[in-house]
Amino acid sequence: MEYIPSKLLQDAVDQFSRLPGIGKKTALRLILDLIKREESTVNNFANSLITLKANIHNCRICGNLSDEETCTICQNPKRSQRLICIVENVRDVIAIEQTGTYRGTYHILGGLISPIDGIGPSDLNIEQLMARIDSEGADEIVFALSANMEGDTTCFYLSRLLRDKVGKISQIARGVAFGGDLEYTDELTLARSLESRTEYKQN
Amino acid sequence: MEYIPSKLLQDAVDQFSRLPGIGKKTALRLILDLIKREESTVNNFANSLITLKANIHNCRICGNLSDEETCTICQNPKRSQRLICIVENVRDVIAIEQTGTYRGTYHILGGLISPIDGIGPSDLNIEQLMARIDSEGADEIVFALSANMEGDTTCFYLSRLLRDKVGKISQIARGVAFGGDLEYTDELTLARSLESRTEYKQN
Repeated sequence: MEYIPSKLLQDAVDQFSRLPGIGKKTALRLILDLIKREESTVNNFANSLITLKANIHNCRICGNLSDEETCTICQNPKRSQRLICIVENVRDVIAIEQTGTYRGTYHILGGLISPIDGIGPSDLNIEQLMARIDSEGADEIVFALSANMEGDTTCFYLSRLLRDKVGKISQIARGVAFGGDLEYTDELTLARSLESRTEYKQN
Repeated sequence: MEYIPSKLLQDAVDQFSRLPGIGKKTALRLILDLIKREESTVNNFANSLITLKANIHNCRICGNLSDEETCTICQNPKRSQRLICIVENVRDVIAIEQTGTYRGTYHILGGLISPIDGIGPSDLNIEQLMARIDSEGADEIVFALSANMEGDTTCFYLSRLLRDKVGKISQIARGVAFGGDLEYTDELTLARSLESRTEYKQN
């Protein structure tokens, strides 16, 4: 936009529109709405982000987000550390937790293998996964990765690393639509595909 | 969402999802993207909002947003203070400025008369408009309000107040689709409807 009535507004719009899916016009609309509110509301909003960034960590065990050294799931004695669900990111953990059906723990890769985007195994949280399994052991690994090329590649790669170390490797049932993102799958479909997970077979 | 891995994350999501059109899921996506960035980036983002809120004012003359006492448009000696375009909000000023065709100044009402929403003339920036015209005079008033019931009601109300005080009252041509919001009109349509503005006639 060429005309913005204030330099400070321009700055805020520029910052806001760096968020994914937020264009200049949306950023402007959100900011104009925000600054109509009380100063304390705006400050609380801004400070919640500063505090979050300063205090949020990745769980030492699984890579999930946490305010503490380990996340609430890894801390929970009712959650099995020997049943590990491999996911791409924190939003996938949240999506699976919403189903209320999974009692194991997670391991967050932080991405998927994607040669086209230059993302290889060393860019992912795989070394930590192997160290975790070497040290603590695991009965079952469940792949809950998106049903696309990158997800399949990552399953294939990990299964080769894991096949001699764990009793069972499974993947969530392909009830998830092909090419679909895991986090947008409805809870029922996701719950069912966890229940009917099948043994991972290499082609 | 029931499961959020961190109280701080939950706080930030709650704050963010109070913005218009931002649900919990979108808020989470934006925040997870934001916290992947450098701490300085997050702090700059947050501080730009705090600084903006602390320093932004409404222009003393027209009600536009400004870092100073008067806005850059009212400060500009090339812009006529005797040709005043009446708009609902700052986004409408921005939309008209984008056309690059208007050389007068603005007056921002801060809303439209809407009995159904309990918004009456006293809730709008009308007293300031009348004081401005009584003190400085005006050759022409252009109504550039949304083409809906509230816009029409507001034009009607203002025209009765203004008809004995200004030489000419006009409104932008109804090239704007009925029921359409002014800010989403394309620049060409908006420029044309400014050019072909017609005298405001009371029914």
